[in-house]
Amino acid sequence: MEYQNILEEIHDALKNVPDKGTVPSYIPELEKISPDRLGLYLLTWNKEEYGTGDFDIPFSIQSISKVLSLAKALNFTGADLWKRVDVEPSGNPFNFLSLLELEKGIPRNPFINAGAIVVSDILLSHLEDPKRDFLNYIRELAEDDSITYNESVARSEKATGFRNAAAANLLKSFGNMNNKVDDVLDFYYYQCSLSMTCKQLARTFYMFTNSGKNATGKTFLTPSQAKRINAIMLTCGFYDEAGEFAFEVGLPGKSGVGGGIVAIHPEKYCMVTWSPGLNEKGNSLLGMKALEMFTTKTGLSIF
Amino acid sequence: MEYQNILEEIHDALKNVPDKGTVPSYIPELEKISPDRLGLYLLTWNKEEYGTGDFDIPFSIQSISKVLSLAKALNFTGADLWKRVDVEPSGNPFNFLSLLELEKGIPRNPFINAGAIVVSDILLSHLEDPKRDFLNYIRELAEDDSITYNESVARSEKATGFRNAAAANLLKSFGNMNNKVDDVLDFYYYQCSLSMTCKQLARTFYMFTNSGKNATGKTFLTPSQAKRINAIMLTCGFYDEAGEFAFEVGLPGKSGVGGGIVAIHPEKYCMVTWSPGLNEKGNSLLGMKALEMFTTKTGLSIF
Amino acid sequence: MEYQNILEEIHDALKNVPDKGTVPSYIPELEKISPDRLGLYLLTWNKEEYGTGDFDIPFSIQSISKVLSLAKALNFTGADLWKRVDVEPSGNPFNFLSLLELEKGIPRNPFINAGAIVVSDILLSHLEDPKRDFLNYIRELAEDDSITYNESVARSEKATGFRNAAAANLLKSFGNMNNKVDDVLDFYYYQCSLSMTCKQLARTFYMFTNSGKNATGKTFLTPSQAKRINAIMLTCGFYDEAGEFAFEVGLPGKSGVGGGIVAIHPEKYCMVTWSPGLNEKGNSLLGMKALEMFTTKTGLSIF
Amino acid sequence: MEYQNILEEIHDALKNVPDKGTVPSYIPELEKISPDRLGLYLLTWNKEEYGTGDFDIPFSIQSISKVLSLAKALNFTGADLWKRVDVEPSGNPFNFLSLLELEKGIPRNPFINAGAIVVSDILLSHLEDPKRDFLNYIRELAEDDSITYNESVARSEKATGFRNAAAANLLKSFGNMNNKVDDVLDFYYYQCSLSMTCKQLARTFYMFTNSGKNATGKTFLTPSQAKRINAIMLTCGFYDEAGEFAFEVGLPGKSGVGGGIVAIHPEKYCMVTWSPGLNEKGNSLLGMKALEMFTTKTGLSIF
Repeated sequence: MEYQNILEEIHDALKNVPDKGTVPSYIPELEKISPDRLGLYLLTWNKEEYGTGDFDIPFSIQSISKVLSLAKALNFTGADLWKRVDVEPSGNPFNFLSLLELEKGIPRNPFINAGAIVVSDILLSHLEDPKRDFLNYIRELAEDDSITYNESVARSEKATGFRNAAAANLLKSFGNMNNKVDDVLDFYYYQCSLSMTCKQLARTFYMFTNSGKNATGKTFLTPSQAKRINAIMLTCGFYDEAGEFAFEVGLPGKSGVGGGIVAIHPEKYCMVTWSPGLNEKGNSLLGMKALEMFTTKTGLSIF
Repeated sequence: MEYQNILEEIHDALKNVPDKGTVPSYIPELEKISPDRLGLYLLTWNKEEYGTGDFDIPFSIQSISKVLSLAKALNFTGADLWKRVDVEPSGNPFNFLSLLELEKGIPRNPFINAGAIVVSDILLSHLEDPKRDFLNYIRELAEDDSITYNESVARSEKATGFRNAAAANLLKSFGNMNNKVDDVLDFYYYQCSLSMTCKQLARTFYMFTNSGKNATGKTFLTPSQAKRINAIMLTCGFYDEAGEFAFEVGLPGKSGVGGGIVAIHPEKYCMVTWSPGLNEKGNSLLGMKALEMFTTKTGLSIF
Repeated sequence: MEYQNILEEIHDALKNVPDKGTVPSYIPELEKISPDRLGLYLLTWNKEEYGTGDFDIPFSIQSISKVLSLAKALNFTGADLWKRVDVEPSGNPFNFLSLLELEKGIPRNPFINAGAIVVSDILLSHLEDPKRDFLNYIRELAEDDSITYNESVARSEKATGFRNAAAANLLKSFGNMNNKVDDVLDFYYYQCSLSMTCKQLARTFYMFTNSGKNATGKTFLTPSQAKRINAIMLTCGFYDEAGEFAFEVGLPGKSGVGGGIVAIHPEKYCMVTWSPGLNEKGNSLLGMKALEMFTTKTGLSIF
Repeated sequence: MEYQNILEEIHDALKNVPDKGTVPSYIPELEKISPDRLGLYLLTWNKEEYGTGDFDIPFSIQSISKVLSLAKALNFTGADLWKRVDVEPSGNPFNFLSLLELEKGIPRNPFINAGAIVVSDILLSHLEDPKRDFLNYIRELAEDDSITYNESVARSEKATGFRNAAAANLLKSFGNMNNKVDDVLDFYYYQCSLSMTCKQLARTFYMFTNSGKNATGKTFLTPSQAKRINAIMLTCGFYDEAGEFAFEVGLPGKSGVGGGIVAIHPEKYCMVTWSPGLNEKGNSLLGMKALEMFTTKTGLSIF
């Protein structure tokens, strides 16, 4: 069966299910999005592109940005980054601050908030104009200069992000932050506020299917770095549901509370889904289902 | 034996011991104090006063202020305060944020930092001019208008107080803070920076030996409130060493990292010690010993 | 008002309240007891005795026995006991094994199960015939040879005591148990199964009001040991409600899931209550109320 | 380069390194093994076989058996098994009992001890003669009737396995164990005591590279079950080093304290290493290095 047909079949099967999950209420800007949105986009290794539904509507990529800031930070620090952030799954959703405290300020991995905040701190130390330069990096990866931050999302998240502020202060207390708490959080929220479509995300993440080179063939990561980020996506990409996603879908991936999910099959394809309703673990309910259906129908999984 | 002799005996026995504990280095203003300082002051229920050593030199009362802010807050809220702070020992020094997280933002008791920060939030909501009014409250309790804040201590602690900032943000994230995080922390550090002598502290805490009335006979707490604060001092007054203090000394009390300790024997006396070197649990090393010697020599304990 | 009148007033006020708490269902033998039972007994320092209600009916003393086994173990080890058990409140009801694990097998205090199991291990190493000798010790304290174990309670608790078996094995894994796990648990359950009346308990605990001497004047503890056990009862006697009990009642005490509570006012009195219904923290609901009423009516508290 | 050459190159590079890790002392039978042992064995999907060093010497497979007992249990329960065991990484090596307690007796995954004990309980409920039948299952998978349990290893581990006994009792207390604690532990230790060579293990695990069929083509798992067990090996196969192994090696795998490691590349190969010295996380030091070298040299990883 052709990919386009498979995407449309999945879209048809899911667009009318009654339970579409819950749009999170704690970020006012996100709450306004209709839970009926559903976009699917597939970019294969040989650059064929397929899309159905709302794949061309921008949404807030949120935690998906953590993969991109990690990739950029590795350009500056190389493997030294792993002295400040570990690569182990967190496993403990209900007391993340406790873990950070017990492990003396070394976040479990770069995809929990505390870890991503350390990565933001690194970028802040190395980028000349952090917000501008990081945006340019994304635009170059995606070959698309229309990508922007959503500043009102960034501001509304910062105004209510007390748990992140707690984590950032705890990191600072352990000496794992070089810049000012407030500056780091400010930059962190900007990254999370990136507004992108499924299509733009697929192009941006193409480098992870292609050993570190984007679709134009330009190198952004070494092959080894790209593999390792894929490994971390597999073990840590879905909060407390990483094991479940590996188990049901069998691909490296990363989700965001904006309802997006990116999944990578190295040297095969990059698939992006968007549906704003979340399951109880904070991952897009229909997105998870769509990816599970896709790997079942195509028989393509890394396992 | 007379009280004055007992105090002098204790002072003589301790002033030359080689191990005087460690003056904490994380608060620059405190680090400057000589570890050789040792002051003892006793104020009996019938208002006899005895002192030896450095009892007339002001020091930073730090966490001892938590008892006084609690007493003042009860004037405004009565027992409603206990909906926002519990009265149980914390028992877990190494992961205090974890406990706060697991218990959904209700601090274990008003004498751990998180609990005292909630109390500061309450005072901030009720006092017209919080810093001025709280200082006047202390001055009135002690009948001494020379008591002041040490603003440079307050500022230096705030500038490096990342763990308290983490706790405050966590409280805010759980909805257990009505004012702004920054305002609450600012007021909290002012309270901790109160600079007082052993003698002034003894007079201030006299109300806890006297069912809520200070030495002039003015009522500041109901007898029941005074008793209950004594109970909390006994179970929670010494961080992770509360059980040890109850076990060795057998009195309600409260310590501060400035090296002060206040101990209460209801309807008998209030005793204050000051020695800046701390033991590994953060309580004044010589102060703990002095109080243990005092209750052993006098046979006076509540048990 | 006379003590007898006060006891009767309290009994009258409580015997018909609709909510008498919940008789625990996990110990079959205890579940059979009527929740309407209510006994109060007061033994003053000068040996006056007062009682109302079911003060002469035996019940399972359960965790109250932990105070007595501790007292006996101190006879053998003296202060060395405190190398194997700490004296700090536990503060963490929901993950007691976690604390034991984090603190490398040193129980927080002798009144949590893990601590009492260590105390049982000590007695097992020192008593010639542990069950017989411990029973004789209790009988001598109470001057009453009719006291016995309830063996069917001991057996039924052992058969279902998987959490205690988990704690005991964890202690063994940390090297804090000298005898066999099974032998220690067997003896531990026997101690808990002691069947005693309010009156017998008051006589047994008289030594804690009387500096270590029982009513016949025979010495069972040094004055210092008696004081210290009182201190531990105050800080640790009521599981996660120790702070609450100190706050509301203001006396050292110890409760058991059989519905009994013993409270001590040094050199004043020993009061025992029994009512089988428990509150959500596992302490006798009416017993807690009776003691609160008693200290309020008499104005007698240690604070 | 040919596989045989690669294996020999790795063997040569590692056999004389000075730091070979530490042979664990807590299992007397294992302590006797020489740390100089090093065996490598590769079985490709198309059934080519390559080996160097001590690949034909039997060793105690220990936790590697957890994968095999899980595979067998799925035959009986299908997906119902996942109601009693989760599939998430544990992430928390220092307080595994705490996690089990907080998560109410549902082990994080089938490869931590608590999870494997639940799997043993399932097998005990379904196998007619558990020890005999499980051994026959392994022999059939490997096509090798010479495989046996090492009963003295089983007995010595059971005699000192107090932490496992703690976990088992905790599981029982939460109702997640149907058989007797002692019977389950007895069977669990037998499984762990299986004595196998690298070559035998490679043949036994061939089914995970081959969608559930062993080398004779007989089906032991559905393709979906095989994939999912691979996913769990990747996220949970190396205790607290699962992320590190995914990151450095990039394959599903499972290690045991006997020094063995099995790694799976679906539809490519199964590789087994054995070297008894462990790193600080409890995984074979040289085995980890050998696998890292192998995937680097061959460029074969799932990412």
